[in-house]
Amino acid sequence: MTIEPADLLARLIACPSVTPEEAGALDLLEVELEAIGFAVTRLRFEGDGSYPVDNLFATRGQGGRRLLFAGHTDVVPPGDRANWTSDPFTPRVVNGVIYGRGAADMKSGIAAFVAACADIPTEAGTIQLAITNDEEADAINGTDKLVAWMAENGHQFDFAIVGEPSSTETLGDSIKIGRRGSFSGKVTVTGTQGHVAYPHKANNPLPVLAAIATALSSEKLDTGTDHFPASNLELTTIDVGNPVSNVIPMSGTLRFNIRYNDTWTPETLADWIRARIASVDPNGTDIIFEVSGTPSRAFLSPLGSDIETLSAVIAERNGKPPEYSTGGGTSDARFIAQYGPVVECGLVGPSMHKADEHIALADLTGLTEIYTAFMRRYFVGDPA
Amino acid sequence: MTIEPADLLARLIACPSVTPEEAGALDLLEVELEAIGFAVTRLRFEGDGSYPVDNLFATRGQGGRRLLFAGHTDVVPPGDRANWTSDPFTPRVVNGVIYGRGAADMKSGIAAFVAACADIPTEAGTIQLAITNDEEADAINGTDKLVAWMAENGHQFDFAIVGEPSSTETLGDSIKIGRRGSFSGKVTVTGTQGHVAYPHKANNPLPVLAAIATALSSEKLDTGTDHFPASNLELTTIDVGNPVSNVIPMSGTLRFNIRYNDTWTPETLADWIRARIASVDPNGTDIIFEVSGTPSRAFLSPLGSDIETLSAVIAERNGKPPEYSTGGGTSDARFIAQYGPVVECGLVGPSMHKADEHIALADLTGLTEIYTAFMRRYFVGDPA
Ligand SMILES: [Zn+2]
Ligand SMILES: [Zn+2]
Repeated sequence: MTIEPADLLARLIACPSVTPEEAGALDLLEVELEAIGFAVTRLRFEGDGSYPVDNLFATRGQGGRRLLFAGHTDVVPPGDRANWTSDPFTPRVVNGVIYGRGAADMKSGIAAFVAACADIPTEAGTIQLAITNDEEADAINGTDKLVAWMAENGHQFDFAIVGEPSSTETLGDSIKIGRRGSFSGKVTVTGTQGHVAYPHKANNPLPVLAAIATALSSEKLDTGTDHFPASNLELTTIDVGNPVSNVIPMSGTLRFNIRYNDTWTPETLADWIRARIASVDPNGTDIIFEVSGTPSRAFLSPLGSDIETLSAVIAERNGKPPEYSTGGGTSDARFIAQYGPVVECGLVGPSMHKADEHIALADLTGLTEIYTAFMRRYFVGDPA
Repeated sequence: MTIEPADLLARLIACPSVTPEEAGALDLLEVELEAIGFAVTRLRFEGDGSYPVDNLFATRGQGGRRLLFAGHTDVVPPGDRANWTSDPFTPRVVNGVIYGRGAADMKSGIAAFVAACADIPTEAGTIQLAITNDEEADAINGTDKLVAWMAENGHQFDFAIVGEPSSTETLGDSIKIGRRGSFSGKVTVTGTQGHVAYPHKANNPLPVLAAIATALSSEKLDTGTDHFPASNLELTTIDVGNPVSNVIPMSGTLRFNIRYNDTWTPETLADWIRARIASVDPNGTDIIFEVSGTPSRAFLSPLGSDIETLSAVIAERNGKPPEYSTGGGTSDARFIAQYGPVVECGLVGPSMHKADEHIALADLTGLTEIYTAFMRRYFVGDPA
């Protein structure tokens, strides 16, 4: 049995699976995967301050090397429909290009991998899929819990591919071997409110807040590594909200975000932030630093033979190997990296999250061929 | 004919003359002043971006020395009535204390001065009153235009008293011989918005904004003068309003207020602010400085024999002369100071603008006696 990736992609796009509603996308995958021999488990995770999310785990084969493919069926909202040439959830093909929300990010990666699996004999090894319907929003009841569930239930893997759109201009020009981490924080400085005419009865927190803003933004965290650019802190907002020109405010806050490389952890960053804050004279104010949400850890996959195999497959196709990138925001690969080596390899990404999101159908076929060729070699390789 | 100041004060408090509604307060004064020989002119000023305001000018006597008494019948709103023991516009006397909105600020000053005038013979000299119903709010169509109108119409003065509550604990412990000025400004820094993951495509304005905040708040304007404390700048707010932790904002603003002594003018202050801003590297951002509203000028009355006479009258009563103060916010005296020497001399102020505003009736009688004794000596003094 073969699966036509363009047909599967079109049917996935037709499911309006805006986070967290799977809208039939996982149901469709369940049917397709069972048809090619996978055992499918549907897992609904909930709690931890977020909405319930549908997830899907599938496995096929016994023994041999173990490959994990991870991805997400959820998509970001289409935004203003007026910016779309046609309905974002009605797939449309024009001149070999397919349009629709999720075409690039990342229903195409899933369609290509499922189609590739149909071409791989069951006895080759163990293929597993971990598909969530919440990568684009909270990501609390998605891949993070799915890979933890896999570990608890004996579903280990030797290598993982995430089907995110990793290519920048042409298919396979780049794969991602790591991602920067993201750390958001908030600093609140509280002084004593008063009237501007009687400053000795007040203690203005804003000069201290400004000094902390400077302390945080003026010192470089590092100068980068072989695979990562320098870590970077950006002040995102400073807010007081005092509408009255004759009142010294009681408190003010600043917020910041750090994109950081694998020389840092959330814990070492928090120490660095506390030290920067401590370099400022509090002048009698009360300074509180809080981490906002859960920081995303930076990761860098160990470079090994499986990444070399994937690179070789792509090089034979394109005439040159892919760039090993660590650029962009965060992805669910950060959760997988805690259990084993992971690489992101998928379609051409620039139209993702935009109106008229699209990919070339030739690239979809190409990605299917890359996944197929990679698996053929992967399953004859040595176990890790 | 005599006027009982407590009776006049009670009738003034009963007029709910919250700015800008005179609510009968000026009508009542017109009748009282005409009864003791004053010629009264009512002047309604309007325009210049503010609401219309009723004002009153009164004059009595020909030749001799010319005294101006200035004040306001308007009051600040009572606020939450639940904080008042009884209705703020129904005067209430308990144990020699009269309660009501305007009891201290400054219907009492007006009642005392009008009562004092009833005791001064018409032939003593020229007494003028300039009473506005807008000191507490915009002050655009009030005293500023009233004293300009007086100058244009030949109503000069040799000395002026403003009946604001100048005493801090006991009647006559302090008179005000000047006031600091007030200058509010706003600085907007505009950079280039972007995503925190791609800072090289953006230009964050917040480090520049923080540096300007530090530049403005870290340098002293001056160290004060004999009669004024050091000029002082307070940052009042810093606002960006960026709700998103992964976006570098386009712009941010800070606002500040300066209370300054008579070594500065609004023009020299603006130069100082521009120089402080220029000390910061703009780093490619666009920096705009704007003055907010109309700055209040600082003033210091020349110390002369009339202030000495007032001081002597108070010293004979209290056993010690009043402090010459320049404290507090701004008052309408800043407009009068442009035409001649002015002093603020009135009741005990701390309850002003609060719930259960009040003064001691003995102090009202005392202030009437101070005004009377002062006028008796003033009108036999040498013309300025
Ligand atoms: Zn994605
Ligand atoms: Zn007043």
